[in-house]
Amino acid sequence: MGFVCFVVPMPFVYERTVRLADTDAAGVVYFARTLSICHEAYEAALAAAGIDLNALLGANGIVVPISRSEADYKRPLRPGDKLTIAVIPEARSENAFAVRYEVTKLGPPPKLSASVRTEHVCTAPAKRERAPLPPALLAWVKAG
Amino acid sequence: MGFVCFVVPMPFVYERTVRLADTDAAGVVYFARTLSICHEAYEAALAAAGIDLNALLGANGIVVPISRSEADYKRPLRPGDKLTIAVIPEARSENAFAVRYEVTKLGPPPKLSASVRTEHVCTAPAKRERAPLPPALLAWVKAG
Amino acid sequence: MGFVCFVVPMPFVYERTVRLADTDAAGVVYFARTLSICHEAYEAALAAAGIDLNALLGANGIVVPISRSEADYKRPLRPGDKLTIAVIPEARSENAFAVRYEVTKLGPPPKLSASVRTEHVCTAPAKRERAPLPPALLAWVKAG
Amino acid sequence: MGFVCFVVPMPFVYERTVRLADTDAAGVVYFARTLSICHEAYEAALAAAGIDLNALLGANGIVVPISRSEADYKRPLRPGDKLTIAVIPEARSENAFAVRYEVTKLGPPPKLSASVRTEHVCTAPAKRERAPLPPALLAWVKAG
Repeated sequence: MGFVCFVVPMPFVYERTVRLADTDAAGVVYFARTLSICHEAYEAALAAAGIDLNALLGANGIVVPISRSEADYKRPLRPGDKLTIAVIPEARSENAFAVRYEVTKLGPPPKLSASVRTEHVCTAPAKRERAPLPPALLAWVKAG
Repeated sequence: MGFVCFVVPMPFVYERTVRLADTDAAGVVYFARTLSICHEAYEAALAAAGIDLNALLGANGIVVPISRSEADYKRPLRPGDKLTIAVIPEARSENAFAVRYEVTKLGPPPKLSASVRTEHVCTAPAKRERAPLPPALLAWVKAG
Repeated sequence: MGFVCFVVPMPFVYERTVRLADTDAAGVVYFARTLSICHEAYEAALAAAGIDLNALLGANGIVVPISRSEADYKRPLRPGDKLTIAVIPEARSENAFAVRYEVTKLGPPPKLSASVRTEHVCTAPAKRERAPLPPALLAWVKAG
Repeated sequence: MGFVCFVVPMPFVYERTVRLADTDAAGVVYFARTLSICHEAYEAALAAAGIDLNALLGANGIVVPISRSEADYKRPLRPGDKLTIAVIPEARSENAFAVRYEVTKLGPPPKLSASVRTEHVCTAPAKRERAPLPPALLAWVKAG
């Protein structure tokens, strides 16, 4: 007799308050801004893992742009709303990964407000071809 | 003997130049900004059809928020790039529709730079339920 | 013989990391975004003082828009830079106040990166005339 | 007898419609976005004068960042409002210039909605010192 132990990694969670600049004249967060908030969370997750975002912006001959995004906007968000954004990376290949984001409005009770997913592809612009993910980024993706 | 004639509606096409504010430190358009540019095109298409955007922001007891977005980012866009955005509405139900956007960078040769799709749902916030699309908006969707 | 004691209020200080969405293709924070970051700090300062921003957006028949802004951009800011923004309100009249912001990039050594000032006027849109500041806001301004 | 002829240069005028993304939950254009709209007009004015913006973003060893901005926000602007932005450059020195912007909401009658001014300084980042304005930019400034 014994235990079977699953190690479930806890996702990185980013905290954010909705600001006036996030909203539009409908009184709620502008849809595309939800994606920006998720990208902030992605940047914070990378920083927490010791990965310098600037190294992914061309500094080492590679860039890791977003090739696709999907978002489901489930509930309107208003100025002052307090959010958490869970950041969950997913391995796809040696050149590519995805990130899922769960945007939750704090309660009580907390409510899932948006589900977002981005796909990222590591590219060597000089060669115009795909490139392997840098080791630190690959490690972060696999730990997700 | 004779002709079979198909009337193919021409989509609304919006022209836009990439501005510095659209870009980020990677030197190209920030991914979420592509969605904002498409929404500008949607607003221009509605205006060209005689539909007042403010009427969809709560003025008549209804709002028509975006419930979902998808975007494929195919080519980087840089400051000064000249774009066309074709706006193609799709009927879905009496309460909902979608809009497809083709973002093309002018050439020669022109190149498809992003494909975007948004889903919109007409809602009566006071009743917390779906509502029929206003007639002018429904007509615009059906003509798409 | 004795002491002369000055009570110097400590300004509210907001912490912020520069994000990719704040920057442009020049690789640094887009100038107007500096003002948005300061407004975030203002919103956080109001929240810390127990003032609901939504109450200043028309909920009580008044709005408190910005009538003027000035900004000196002293040093470029890059993605990942850690900032503090000190928020210092200044009384002007029963209808109006100003807020000064000192944007400092953390070091070592810390460096003043931008100085910003906004002027705010309390207005009753229905009457198209100035209105007295709400008491809680006036108290926050006077404590600055 | 004869005529005295003054040649008064006509300023460059940029046309812009207020979009939802320009606004916030107060229902009007977010203050800092007014500056972005003016910078769009500046970019369009440079392009009309044959000046490539990318050449001012570091391509030739110089950058021309904004060192100061001032803005008076005179009237609220709403989604769908049609604007003109007049762009008036002012010479300051061989290294620096300013640009004034008059943001007018079309009428009838047209109404001045914001007055903005930006100061720009040509800098050689590698040397950390001021640099002369490129000839084409200097010519544009002097013609203003």
